[in-house]
Formats: sequence, C-alpha cells, structure tokens
Amino acid sequence: MTTRTLKLGANLNGVGNSVSFWRHPDIPGDASVDIEFYKKQARIAEEGKFDLLFIADGLYINEKSNPHFLNRFEPLTLLSALTGATSHIGLVATLSTSYSEPFTVARQFASLDHLSRGRAGWNVVTSPLEGSALNFGKGGHPQHALRYEIAEEHLEVVKGLWDSWEDDAFVRDKASGVFFDPAKLHTLHHKGKHFSVQGPLNIARSRQGHPVIFQAGSSEPGKELAAKSADAVYSGHETFEEARQFYADVKARAAAHGRRPEDILIFPGIGPIVGSTEEEAERKYLEIAELVDIHQALNYLGRYFDHFDFSQFPLDEPFPDIGDLGSNSFRSTTDKIKREAREQGLTLRETAQRASTPRSHFIGTPEQVADQIQKWFEGGAADGFNVRTVVPDGLADFVDHVVPILQRRGLFRTEYESDTLRGNLGLKVPQNRYTLQPENV
Amino acid sequence: MTTRTLKLGANLNGVGNSVSFWRHPDIPGDASVDIEFYKKQARIAEEGKFDLLFIADGLYINEKSNPHFLNRFEPLTLLSALTGATSHIGLVATLSTSYSEPFTVARQFASLDHLSRGRAGWNVVTSPLEGSALNFGKGGHPQHALRYEIAEEHLEVVKGLWDSWEDDAFVRDKASGVFFDPAKLHTLHHKGKHFSVQGPLNIARSRQGHPVIFQAGSSEPGKELAAKSADAVYSGHETFEEARQFYADVKARAAAHGRRPEDILIFPGIGPIVGSTEEEAERKYLEIAELVDIHQALNYLGRYFDHFDFSQFPLDEPFPDIGDLGSNSFRSTTDKIKREAREQGLTLRETAQRASTPRSHFIGTPEQVADQIQKWFEGGAADGFNVRTVVPDGLADFVDHVVPILQRRGLFRTEYESDTLRGNLGLKVPQNRYTLQPENV
Ligand SMILES: Cc1cc2nc3c(=O)[nH]c(=O)nc-3n(C[C@H](O)[C@H](O)[C@H](O)COP(=O)(O)O)c2cc1C
Ligand SMILES: Cc1cc2nc3c(=O)[nH]c(=O)nc-3n(C[C@H](O)[C@H](O)[C@H](O)COP(=O)(O)O)c2cc1C
Repeated sequence: MTTRTLKLGANLNGVGNSVSFWRHPDIPGDASVDIEFYKKQARIAEEGKFDLLFIADGLYINEKSNPHFLNRFEPLTLLSALTGATSHIGLVATLSTSYSEPFTVARQFASLDHLSRGRAGWNVVTSPLEGSALNFGKGGHPQHALRYEIAEEHLEVVKGLWDSWEDDAFVRDKASGVFFDPAKLHTLHHKGKHFSVQGPLNIARSRQGHPVIFQAGSSEPGKELAAKSADAVYSGHETFEEARQFYADVKARAAAHGRRPEDILIFPGIGPIVGSTEEEAERKYLEIAELVDIHQALNYLGRYFDHFDFSQFPLDEPFPDIGDLGSNSFRSTTDKIKREAREQGLTLRETAQRASTPRSHFIGTPEQVADQIQKWFEGGAADGFNVRTVVPDGLADFVDHVVPILQRRGLFRTEYESDTLRGNLGLKVPQNRYTLQPENV
Repeated sequence: MTTRTLKLGANLNGVGNSVSFWRHPDIPGDASVDIEFYKKQARIAEEGKFDLLFIADGLYINEKSNPHFLNRFEPLTLLSALTGATSHIGLVATLSTSYSEPFTVARQFASLDHLSRGRAGWNVVTSPLEGSALNFGKGGHPQHALRYEIAEEHLEVVKGLWDSWEDDAFVRDKASGVFFDPAKLHTLHHKGKHFSVQGPLNIARSRQGHPVIFQAGSSEPGKELAAKSADAVYSGHETFEEARQFYADVKARAAAHGRRPEDILIFPGIGPIVGSTEEEAERKYLEIAELVDIHQALNYLGRYFDHFDFSQFPLDEPFPDIGDLGSNSFRSTTDKIKREAREQGLTLRETAQRASTPRSHFIGTPEQVADQIQKWFEGGAADGFNVRTVVPDGLADFVDHVVPILQRRGLFRTEYESDTLRGNLGLKVPQNRYTLQPENV
C-alpha cells in the first residue's frame, strides 16, 4: 500500500482574488495580462513541487466586474504558453460546457496535453453568470439543472472523442508505408439530446489517455457530475466541518458509481497568509482588506447575485433578506454567503468586505498554516488544496515556509514522482473504451 | 517614400505537404505532434528573419485523410506554446468562421496577441470539407455563398469585440483606486443575421490593435471578403500569370473599398526546393514523389472532391470528366486541378501525383529560386510568399541559401524592423472604431 500524500494546486489569477489586490504597491497592476508575471508564479510553484497550476475563467463582464475579470488571458492559450517555461507541473484550464463545442474542446485540451507531454487538465464548469448567454447569441442562460444535463453529455462526448485513436494506432512504418492501423481508429457517432458529434478526433490520445478532469460546482447535480465523471473537485468550503461533510458526500457518491476513494481527489480552495508571527500574518491581511472601497465591495458582492444592487440597503445593519436571489448562478456560493451572514450576525458591510477580500482559516505562522493543512488532510476534509495568492508574494511565502514543514512531516513530496499530471496525482491512465471492450470495436 | 520589401511566411505543417512525406528517413514520423520539431522550425524561420509562422487547419478527417491531418496540434494552442521560443516572428493560426463562436475566437486571438506582445494573426477560412458539419452537430455544411456571408459577419463581430476597450482604457491608478475609465469601455450590442453578441470582450486591445487578418480562399466571394476586411491573402496559384491576375484583381477590389495597395498583402504559397545544381534539386523532389503509393495519391486527390473515389477510372488515360464535383468545397483548388489537367493533357496518374506531391516553379539552384521570387515580387504577382517545407531541411536550405541572395539584392530585410507582426509587415495599427468616431462613444 502506498502512503497517501497531499496534493497542491496553485490557482494563478493575476490581480484577482480580491477587488483591490491590484492597488497594492507590490503587485503589478497589469499582472493579469503579463506573461512574465505568470511565468514567475509558475516557476515558484514548480520549485515548490506543486502538482498543478489552475486557471479559473468567466465569459461575461460588465463595468462592475472585478478588475481581474475585465482583462485577463484566456486559459488555454495561457497554459499553452506556459508549457515551455515548466517541465513537471500540471496545467489545468477552466472551460464552460454551456458555451463551447465538444469537438473544439476535445481538440484544444488534447493538443495542450501533447504540447506538455501529459500535463493537461480541464476544470469543467457550467458558467454561473446569466449574462454569458448574451455573448454567445443563445436564447437565454440555461437553467441550473439543464446546464448540468448539458455538462454531462458534453463531457461524455469529449471523452469519447479522446478515445478516437487507440494508444498504438499510429504505426508509422516507413518501409511498408502504413501510417496507422485502421482497426484502431474509432468513430464516435454520438447523437444525443444536446450534441451530435461524429468524430473521429484529429489528434492522437496523449500520454495521459485523457487530460485530468476537474469539476467545480458544489450543488447536488454538481456533486453528482463530479462523482460520476471527474478525477478531482475544486471546492469552496471555508470551515473544516463543511469541507469534511462535502468530502464524505462526494466520496460516497463516487463509491455508488463503483469508484475507489483515491479515484476522485477533493481540493478545497484556500488563500493562506503566512507571517513570522500571527500578528505579521494579520497585518498582511489588513494591508489588502483596507484597500477596498466599500462601494466596490458591494458591487463585488452583487456579482454573485446576478449583479444585484446592494447599495439600496444600510451598510451597518444585518445582511438584508433577499429571498431566492442568486440561486440560478453561483448557487452554492450565494447559499453560503447568506448562511454565514445569518449565523454569525454579519452586517452588510462585513459581508461585502469578506466577499471582496476573502479570508480563510489558513492565516498565521508557517507551523499554524501547516497544522491546519494537516488537520484537513488527515481529518477527511481534503486530498489537496488549491492555493490562491491573496497577499503579495503569498505563493512564494507558502513555498518557502510552509512546504518545507509539510515535507518534513512526510505529508508532501520532495521530488516529483512523474512528469505527467496523472502520475503526480496518483490517478490511473483511463483505458481506451474500445481497447477495454473489444466487442465494441 | 519607403522601399517596398518582400515578406516571408513559413507554413509549418509537421509531416504534411505531401501524402508520403512522413516516410522519408530524415523526417520524424510524429513531427505533426512533436513540439520540439515545431520549435526547431520556428527558430530556423526566425534566424531567417521570416515575418511569420503560418499554421493551416481542418475540422474533419476520415481514414483516407493525409497523415498530417489525422493527428496534428490545434493551431492556437500550438502557436501559444511557440510564443516563448520566439521573439520577433509573427504567429498566424487558421480558424474557421463556419464552426466557431466569435466571442471565443476574439478572446483566444487577443490572448495570443498579448502573450506574444503583438505577433498574432488569424487566417480566416470557411472550411471546405462537407464532413465538418458532422463534428459540430449542424444540420449540414453551409453552401459556399452562405459560408462567406457568415464569415463576413463573424469577422465584423470579432473586430468589434477587439475594440471593446480603447487603448488607454486601463488607467490603473493605485492612489485613487481607478482601474479603468468607464468612458473607454464599449459594448458592441451586435444583432445580425447569423450572430448576436453583446460584449464587451474580457481582454484589452493589444499592441497590434487587431491581430493581423489573413484570408485564404480565392473564389469571387473569397476575394471580396479579403478586399474588404483582410490585411493579407494566402493564395494557391502556381503560375506567374495566374498569380499576377489574382494580385491585380484583389488590389483593384481593395481600391474599390477605399484601401491602398499596401494595405493588403498577397502571399502565394510556394514549396521551394533548392540544390547546389538543378539536378540535385530535381533529385530531392523525386526522393519525395517516389515515396507515394498511387492508391494513396488517388485518395489524396479525392479529398478535394468530397472524398470522391477516383480509383474507378484508368490511371494512364486523360483525367476524367467529373462535371461540377467539388464546387462546394475547395472550389478554387478543384477548378485549377481540372483546368491544368485539361490544358497540359495530364493523365489521372500524373494529376494524382501532382496533387499528392506538390511541385512548384520554385525548384533549382538558390539563384534560380531567388530569380523566380524576384520576378513574382517585382512583376506584380506577390508581396510575399508563404513557404512550405516539401523536402527534408527545405526551410533550412531556403534560409541558408536563398535568403542571403534576397538580402544582397536589397529585396529582404537583414534585421527585423519591429517586434510586432504589423510592424514587420508594414501594416497600420487599426484605430479603435470608438476612438476614431467620437460621436459613437
Ligand atoms: C470553488 C469553485 C470554483 C469555481 N470556479 C469557476 C470558474 O472558474 N469559472 C466558472 O465559470 N465557474 C466556476 N464555478 C462555478 C460553477 O462551475 C458553477 O457554474 C456554479 O457554481 C453553479 O454550480 P453549483 O451550484 O453546482 O456550485 C466555481 C464554483 C466553485 C464552487
Ligand atoms: C491557399 C489556400 C489555403 C487554404 N488553407 C485552408 C486551411 O488551412 N484550412 C481550411 O479550412 N481551409 C483552407 N482553405 C480553404 C478556403 O478557406 C475555403 O474554405 C475554400 O477554399 C473555399 O473557398 P474558395 O472557393 O474561396 O477558395 C485554403 C484555401 C486556399 C486557396
């Protein structure tokens, strides 16, 4: 039996993470469109032996959007550009199944997997923002349940296309002139409710078989999709208890689909802040939080609720009752915001500040942060973490001060086990569906 | 007045260009999915001061397709991966307007333009192959005229999205907390016959304003689209006379749209073969041509004609009369194939061999090849050339032996004039439509 070890992702997002992060003197204001900034972060993460770089995404902006969302790289082109600057770290791009074509998605991720020689991953999302539909000429944004129905079929088609060629299909025998074995080429002929895609895909299976599938979205259908079809889940729970419940839930659902616990890895997102003392860490948080103008914070909060205008309510009274608002977009996030405000008796101002300057339980000295990580990892709340940078040099501080502690405790690798993402995550290369079931050939 | 100088593109396509190129002992059989192969070619082209790398593309394969088409990188991810391995050369990716969403296209090319700091280009095509529709769940492949109607609107929307942000929109004033100037953010609100796209785009204009627009497709509507909306045309004419007529035609059409001759550059594709003697060049051609099996050559020919089965006809009789076949896919190419066979009295075998192993008029000693180039360039047939590699080391031979002659003759640069593609091509940065016409703001 192999020891279970921690996995780490670096969620890179330029000037993102909080609405005023860009105003800090140590952050380049154009970081979200500066490839040198991303290269530097990527190299820090790879020196820290992180499993993967993670790039979030969105398809709709307006003048109230977070600065990072207004002007950022597109994830697939960005990660392709990072292939040459890195050698072992995984490259996970977010892409929505609600506004894309499975053939194009299958191709671009397969291409990234070949370019990186087996380091690609796809974070499958369904697009929370209603406005996305306006940029794609669709009648309207599909309802939550329908989005997940589309997502499931989309992902099935993409996986089918990735199996178009068996691993040994390309013979390339120069003497006989046989380039490929026609028996190992498979045409999908998918005709479903939402997609009709013939195939085959015009690129071979790569070393990973299929790029690693992440899923982000924690509602019931979100968890079902993950349990059935994903290799990993990016989740947003902030307390140990919430995260533990979610973890147990998803693993149980996966078991119901005949999968082992280690076949699906849960990555809560965290924004660690480390200081040589607790006070220093706290000071670093405040340096960022205090940059936020309260009007911006309210806009930021409104983003989760279909750009609802919160400024009509008094700032220092309890968070207002807004009923069902937000349930068709970031449902799990909006539910959580409402619940925390209620449970902890937060005012609108405090709720908006927390939304605009996220603050996790992973703040303190390197030992304290490592303790939290160990608690979540060993306590059944996480298999790994997706680490956001929430203060300047946040990633470098984590790599320099927290990673060595995790390594000394035997929780985290000191060298990469593999040069593929599946290899480092301990995930199997999926067998080609046609190789597996010869009667289907 | 500046002197008009030659432009050069390197059309990189792995094991492409002829159906049996991959069988040559000096060609890696997996070149089409080997990033190191592409990096090496890219560096050779950049040492040769080429203006751009050009990546062709297609969206449908079957078991008869050219080896390169079966298994190749997707162009945008490939060129993004080459950004770091190059510094001055342009990066032009082919992408079809018949099977893509303008918002995604605008974003990915803008992202590539930022990643490369101003070196991106888009080769706008309409997809010749009927089968493409099967991979995108469309009712059917749109007819030729409709494809161009869609292309024109698609390109207009993409250009509109690229103007979402004026060049000086991102103020990023840390002291005041102003990230952007709302007056310089523009929402497109496009509602047309084929697309409905609100905007704005979630990425800034890059140094080029708009990535360079190439167009490939030489039919009447193809030429009109180019004359109205493209910066450059990739054409497939093989004789000087054909090329000269096409050149004059497109420049006249551009003038009718109020454009100057230097606003639209014509790049015929050539596959030069240089040898220290004519005989050596000829021997290099035969080394490749003789690798082709005649059955493969017939399949290859059939690809242009909706996968028509030519094997039903006798090989050594004149090319058969097949009527109108092929006119809804690669029309200009199929017309040319038919015409040449008729005019030169070619047999089916000879026609198939020429289709499978292209042979241009640019074969001979370096001086002879340079003479042809000069003749076309000065004789009103070309502003530049898109150079295919048709024999092993074809690009390196061209760079080592032909480029220095062109430089000595004062036809071609010895140093890059600029580090943007527009800069090197001598094309203006288009002004933002909103900056240009303040009454529209
Ligand atoms: C931790 C987390 C990260 C997410 N990241 C993205 C993202 O980068 N882009 C996106 O469009 N949606 C993202 N989502 C949204 C979900 O994919 C989904 O569209 C939305 O939350 C509704 O699904 P749910 O109700 O299942 O959470 C994320 C959701 C969570 C919980
Ligand atoms: C020189 C040349 C290169 C082309 N390259 C591509 C290509 O890479 N991908 C593609 O889908 N179509 C390509 N085409 C096809 C055209 O874009 C177009 O779809 C087809 O030829 C029909 O247009 P036409 O009749 O105007 O030539 C090319 C055409 C020409 C003439």
